[in-house]
Formats: sequence, structure tokens, C-alpha cells
Amino acid sequence: MTILSDVTSLADVAALLATLPTADDQATAGARERQMTLTKPPGSLGRLEDLAEFMAGWQRSDRPVIETAQAVVFAGNHGVCAKGVNPFPQEVTMQMVANFQHGGAAINQLCRAAGADLSVVALDLETPTQDISEAPAMSEAETLDALRRGAAAVTPGAQVLILGEMGIGNSTIAAALAFAAFGGVAEDWVGPGTGSDAEGRSLKARVIDQAITRHKDSTGFDMLAALGGREQAAICGAVIEARARSIPVLLDGYICTAAVAPLFNDNPAWLDHCLVGHASAEPGHAKLLSAMNKDAILTMRMALGEGSGAALALNILRAALECHNGMATFAEAGVSDG
Amino acid sequence: MTILSDVTSLADVAALLATLPTADDQATAGARERQMTLTKPPGSLGRLEDLAEFMAGWQRSDRPVIETAQAVVFAGNHGVCAKGVNPFPQEVTMQMVANFQHGGAAINQLCRAAGADLSVVALDLETPTQDISEAPAMSEAETLDALRRGAAAVTPGAQVLILGEMGIGNSTIAAALAFAAFGGVAEDWVGPGTGSDAEGRSLKARVIDQAITRHKDSTGFDMLAALGGREQAAICGAVIEARARSIPVLLDGYICTAAVAPLFNDNPAWLDHCLVGHASAEPGHAKLLSAMNKDAILTMRMALGEGSGAALALNILRAALECHNGMATFAEAGVSDG
Repeated sequence: MTILSDVTSLADVAALLATLPTADDQATAGARERQMTLTKPPGSLGRLEDLAEFMAGWQRSDRPVIETAQAVVFAGNHGVCAKGVNPFPQEVTMQMVANFQHGGAAINQLCRAAGADLSVVALDLETPTQDISEAPAMSEAETLDALRRGAAAVTPGAQVLILGEMGIGNSTIAAALAFAAFGGVAEDWVGPGTGSDAEGRSLKARVIDQAITRHKDSTGFDMLAALGGREQAAICGAVIEARARSIPVLLDGYICTAAVAPLFNDNPAWLDHCLVGHASAEPGHAKLLSAMNKDAILTMRMALGEGSGAALALNILRAALECHNGMATFAEAGVSDG
Repeated sequence: MTILSDVTSLADVAALLATLPTADDQATAGARERQMTLTKPPGSLGRLEDLAEFMAGWQRSDRPVIETAQAVVFAGNHGVCAKGVNPFPQEVTMQMVANFQHGGAAINQLCRAAGADLSVVALDLETPTQDISEAPAMSEAETLDALRRGAAAVTPGAQVLILGEMGIGNSTIAAALAFAAFGGVAEDWVGPGTGSDAEGRSLKARVIDQAITRHKDSTGFDMLAALGGREQAAICGAVIEARARSIPVLLDGYICTAAVAPLFNDNPAWLDHCLVGHASAEPGHAKLLSAMNKDAILTMRMALGEGSGAALALNILRAALECHNGMATFAEAGVSDG
């Protein structure tokens, strides 16, 4: 049973979100208090201290831990590929899913290195969504189905959830979602993706302009149905399920952050339990992070997707908690505290 | 036997450096070639690809690995503390060494999390160096001794070497070394260190001005003797020994980067085998990295020293090599490559 099991309309999903837990401020304060007693100048672990406090608030304990880390990659196909927005053939989505299943992709190595259990959810790859420049990507029923499958992928006992995606053409979907949520011009949100040249980027921008013209009044979950693919909706579903279970989330890069823009558009607070693992080399990501008030943990010029930047950031999160839980206090170590 | 065992003058150390190996360009090229065949858009792993190629060049193999990672923290005390440049008492250096030995410090947790073997070398803590605003910090013999002890600390079989430091007052030493090597004004290089307020920072700048006036003509290893402490010289010795053994090095933050500024001042190429683990919150570090043409791997607003940022960056280096060695090629995975 997931939080979305009994929901029968997108309006109900939005209503449900208001009932979900916020961070435990007492646990956050307890973690902060502990940080001030550890053998280091106050604040000198910088972001690691913030991450320990964040994890405390969502794990509802002043001593947060990561014994089970779950990573899920959602894969989908997109009708907009008919417009030629991606230089790779759409079969690559399925081929990469097989590569994930056989352990050969970057995300497999990064999850093993960081100690995360990886699963892959392929969402009707043989049936791409509709071309967003011509029609809504998904019906309400299809969107609800993808949201539910995202929610169902979350392991209830996970102590942190890493989310990633794979889908040929989905940097165009990401740009459309970011444009719909935050405005500007299409060119602000379009980048090379898997390798589009200047002409390819122009084409992407024109297609996105058509899509936004067609769907310009959509907000929140309607925006998700109009523009998002199945993997975008599944990511939103997993984020909602994680929130219901107070599981902190590590989002990946541009496409994954754009996937939850409809949630942000509904209410920025719905993403309070989400960190962003890395700032992508995809040029729209910096603008998107700024609009969504998120500070990515890593900047490695990566632009691969699959959850790769989030899995890499798990190492940092683990290190933050090792320091938080393992360091001696000034009193324990007999160190003068100035 | 270390490379520095038989050296009897600082001039000989400088001469020796020119005899040491450079990176193996063939191994670097082999690694780059492999990266182009792996199942991802070319370049999409960004910095991780660069790190794999860097490691290949110094490990002299197109398939670099990290089975043994060594971390060394060098600790020293500084006569300049007599001028009141640090709010903590000098005994804290020894207390923190004990904390390292008992496993209670941040660096212990970060090395455990990243899989590095940590050792601590305390350098004559009961005998601080001379006050640099009044005299040269060390004699030539003392400098050579610290260089040799740094070299001797390197485990010959290490596949990567993490360097860190501890020494109350050594953010003043770092600022003096950076100022001597790269000019500007003292204020450019002075920051809060372990917690100096505006008045404390002014005092540090005045003391550094006095030191630079006194030692203004020193360059290279003479600069190290005039301004550096023992832990700075030991870090230089370890960097030289690592170079002789073609072991890649992960330097920590501001103080560790400034410690090797005398090597850079002698010849920037002496640091070609060194990465910088993180960009410190200490304000002089960004300027120092730019002057030394180094791009730190992480930016976490940390300013602790101990090797903490370098140990954290080891996770990224490991992840880079996991991807490099573990990923399937397009041919192996049966994925279309566009």
C-alpha cells in the first residue's frame, strides 16, 4: 500500500500532499546542538554539518544513519522524438535498461561504490507518450498510473532514496517542464542533452515553443500530464511516497530536477525533503536550481542522468553522518574548546 | 630509503626535482580512448573522466586502481603564536594529535568512510618553530629534517596519497607563504582560520606584513625555511617522495595548498601529480587555487584542515575509477552509439 493507492484524480493527489509530514524541528535542533560540541571549530565542516542536520530532521532522530540506501532509475519513451529532437534512436532507452540490469552502466558502478541498492523500473517503453508539441503527453489515468508506479518502487525502510531517469528525448521534456514552471524563453532551458549540436538545439527550442503554446495554461499536476513523460511522473510519485514515509531524497541532475518542477509549481514546500545531488553541465540546470532554491551538493561537469550525480553525492551524505555520529566531543577528547 | 635520504642542502633538493618522473602520456591516452567507448555520451561523466585519465597517467596504467589509499596528517607548532594570532592555545595541537590517535576527529571518520589508512606524524610539537615576524622559521638543517620526515611517511605501495595538517597558528603561516609566493597584500590571504574575528584578522595581517618585510627576497625552498612550519616542510617532502614513486596526491585545503606554494614557486610542474581535494571556505583559498592553476574537486564550505577535504574527495576519485574500470563498452552492452 502506497500513499497514492486509493487516489482517483490528480486533484486528489494535490490535496493529499497537504496532509504529509514536515521535518522534525526538534531532531534538527538536537543535531545542531551536537555539532557544536564536536572536536572542530564550529561550522568548520560546512555543508557536511548542514547535511547531518537535514538528515536528522527527516529521519526524525538527532543521530541519523544510512544503513539502507535505495536507488531507483525510472525509464520512459517520448513521442516528441518523432520531431527529431535527439540524435540517438529511441531503442537506446531499452538497450540502456538492459545495460542497467546487467550491471554495465555508470549508475551500477556508482551505486556499488556508494553502497546503494539499485533497481530499474521500465515504464511501457514500447508505448511512448504522445508528442507534447501536438497533444498532452499523458491522459489523467496514465499520469496517475505512472505516479503510483513511482510510489510503489519506494522501499518502505530506505533511509535515503536516490532517484534517476533514462529516456531518449527527455532533455526536451525537462526543458519544456522548466519553461512551463519558470518562464523565460525556450532557449534558456535547452542544452546539448546527449549530444545535440547548435542546429539540434534550435530544433528543440522550436518544438518546446510549440508545446508551451499548446499547454500554456497548465499548472501543477496538469503540467505534469501535459508535458511530462512517464519517468517524470514516476519520479514525482516516488518523491510523494518518500515524503509520506519521511524518507529524505537525493535527486539527480537537470532532468530529475525538472521532473519535480510540477510539484514545486503546486507548492515549493513539497520538495523540502529533497536534496539535489549535483549541478549538471546541462546549461539550464543552474537556472532551474536557482528558481527552485536548491543548492546542489556536487559540481562535476556531469550530464549523464541515470541518477549518477545523486549516487555520487551519497558518498558525501554518508561522510557527513560518519562525522556527526563518530566524532568525539571536546569533553570526551579532552580538547580545549577555545 | 627515500629520495631525500642523501640530500644535504636545500639547493640539492631543488636540483633533485628535475630528475623525477612526469606523467605517462601513453597511459593517459589509453584511458581517454577507453572512456570514449563506454556506455555514455562522450564527456558526460565530466570531471570523473578527467580524474580517471589523471590517475592513469600517474599510475602509468590505462586501468588505474585504488586498493591502498594512504592518508598522513602532519602536525607542528609555530613560534608566531606568541603574537596572539590564534584564539586557541597551542596545546590544542597536541590534544588534537591525541584525538587523531584515538579515532575521535573528523579525519578519522572521513578516512574510514573513504577507505584510507590514516597515520599521524607529530613534528617536535614541544619545540615550536621561530616566530616568522622576528626570524626565519627554521634553519636549513631543520627544514631538511622536516622534508625527510615527510618523505619517510609515504608508504611505497600507496596508490594515492592524501595529505593534511594540524597546527594551531598555521593559517597565519599559510597566508605568509601565499603572500610570499603570489604577492598582493596581506589582507588578500588572511581569513578567520579557527575563528579569528575582524580584530584578530587585522592582527594576523600586520604580523604577516612584518614577516614578509623581513623575508621578502626568499624564493623556493628558502621561502619554505623562512616562513613554513615543520608540517609545511613535511608536506613538501611527502609530495616530492610521492613524485619520485609516481604516486598521485590529494592535497587538502588552504593550509595544505599554501604549504606546497614554495614548490610551485620553484617550478609549477613539481605539482603536476597533485590534485586539490576541496576549495576551502577560508577566503584566500580561491585566489591561491587560481594562482596555482588548480581546480578543487569539491566545494563544501569546509575549513577544518586535517586532510578532511582531501579524504572526502577520495570518494569521488574512487567513483571515477569504478566507472572507468567497471562500465561496459557500447560493443559489450549492445547499445547503439548514435
